[in-house]
Amino acid sequence: MRVVVALGGNALLKRGEPMTHDVQRANIRVAAQALAPVAQQHELVLAHGNGPQVGLLALQASAYKDVEAYPLDVLGAQTEGMIGYMIEQELGNLLPFETPLATILTMVEVDPNDPAFQNPTKFVGPVYGQQEADRLKAEKGWIFKQDGVQWRRVVPSPLPKRIFQIRPVKWLLEKQTVVICTGGGGIPTMYDPNKHRWLTGIEAVIDKDLASELLAREVEADLFVIATDVKGVYLDWGKPEQRLLGTVTPDELRAHPFPAGSMGPKVQAAIQFVERTGQRAAIGSLEDIEQIVAGTAGTNVIATRRSQ
Amino acid sequence: MRVVVALGGNALLKRGEPMTHDVQRANIRVAAQALAPVAQQHELVLAHGNGPQVGLLALQASAYKDVEAYPLDVLGAQTEGMIGYMIEQELGNLLPFETPLATILTMVEVDPNDPAFQNPTKFVGPVYGQQEADRLKAEKGWIFKQDGVQWRRVVPSPLPKRIFQIRPVKWLLEKQTVVICTGGGGIPTMYDPNKHRWLTGIEAVIDKDLASELLAREVEADLFVIATDVKGVYLDWGKPEQRLLGTVTPDELRAHPFPAGSMGPKVQAAIQFVERTGQRAAIGSLEDIEQIVAGTAGTNVIATRRSQ
Repeated sequence: MRVVVALGGNALLKRGEPMTHDVQRANIRVAAQALAPVAQQHELVLAHGNGPQVGLLALQASAYKDVEAYPLDVLGAQTEGMIGYMIEQELGNLLPFETPLATILTMVEVDPNDPAFQNPTKFVGPVYGQQEADRLKAEKGWIFKQDGVQWRRVVPSPLPKRIFQIRPVKWLLEKQTVVICTGGGGIPTMYDPNKHRWLTGIEAVIDKDLASELLAREVEADLFVIATDVKGVYLDWGKPEQRLLGTVTPDELRAHPFPAGSMGPKVQAAIQFVERTGQRAAIGSLEDIEQIVAGTAGTNVIATRRSQ
Repeated sequence: MRVVVALGGNALLKRGEPMTHDVQRANIRVAAQALAPVAQQHELVLAHGNGPQVGLLALQASAYKDVEAYPLDVLGAQTEGMIGYMIEQELGNLLPFETPLATILTMVEVDPNDPAFQNPTKFVGPVYGQQEADRLKAEKGWIFKQDGVQWRRVVPSPLPKRIFQIRPVKWLLEKQTVVICTGGGGIPTMYDPNKHRWLTGIEAVIDKDLASELLAREVEADLFVIATDVKGVYLDWGKPEQRLLGTVTPDELRAHPFPAGSMGPKVQAAIQFVERTGQRAAIGSLEDIEQIVAGTAGTNVIATRRSQ
């Protein structure tokens, strides 16, 4: 099977943990242990989140006053390098020596007319007091929204349209390479509306699960797994009667309301993959990844019940 | 022809320029204009330096006190992402739309017994006063050397032994992909001497020219170009009688003394490539790259005069 696994940010850094190198390494080592058996039995493509890491780089850059902060596309590229490296090294140490691995820097195209540009919603970077926020707004045109009593920058989260490096990714898969790509939803880029075919980076964040879904579809994956820190999709999450959904069709899943927070995009990405490809998608815990791939854990989304 | 070009740090950031995003973009755009014709006529692999960029990330990290600075291998991975992204995007904009490009994160193995570990020589990161240097020395075991009146960290610069991602690089070249890799000499790694085949990052900097030479040899390049900001190798550099070396053999080049500074490693890498492969190496200015590839500019190092 060809399997695409989207690793949630929580797989790399759990809420509340200090964002040191050692903590991230240790978490990635645990993730690699879960993923190694899958890499040995299947063709594996790994995507991953980068939210906390972009946040740290933005904080570090804002602490250093001599050079102004780099734009989000460049910070995203930095995190693809950093996180890709750690995953590739830790996973490589657990695989047979001859297994090829590669991390491919990934740019993703978005549409300049995406409505997300009219309504930035994604918090990025540090919190600011009102004065500093006003200054940055005037100086850089950044948009701020209130986050508690402080202010935080918001950027658009447009839909992914195209993964530019998809051919290299597929060529490496044909050679049985474990490929790491599309980190952080990919580096956000678009064609300059005023120039012919001139690609440029943009200040945006592409949803990691939706970009991973596009990746899974493009590499014609047999299975698309969204690995997170919960066992799957729950109904009545957090209530005494909460229950895990086992196997569901897109229509069944759509019948339930999910909060717009973290599970919403995952459910949307899984439904989209199944409806567009007829293949299976799954949402579940990274520690259960082997069983999820086998179809015995997580919430599995399948095209129709008859096809079982 | 298959051509490997090692881009000097000066191609990305000229001495004295502020290290802003816009300045680097502008420089990389100029570099891309020089490289585009080469990419259209030949198989092209690009390596690049990262000295100033690692320096900036180290400065930013040291300005932000809440999380201690990440180790050099991780900073190196960040710069491979950042610089690779900018080169790939700018060069891609100048090439026919269908040209595949890919940036491959590159880890390079060094030998734990390399004598460089006994004698760290490579300055990295910010300058410190004596007190701060003493504190970091005690706390982290860093080694400092005096740089003017202040102190700067030094790290070993061991020889590159192996490029782990060489197979993916070659597979992509077979598909006519423009490949960007081995940035900053590659992410420095070694096998843990106390564990079986356990690869780990290390605090070191691998010479970019020597790593690029290994890359050129491994991909069986027909030509290895070290692109910098001078026209080639000069005798009596800086004196009234300075003169550019045109075509030379390794023995002729070895007969001249070169300062250990920036030209030394370039000359060494060029000689090594020519002696080990019999193919041509060249050192010259990035703006002359087309003519260098054609053999009509730069200092060209060839195996024997008879082979001309």
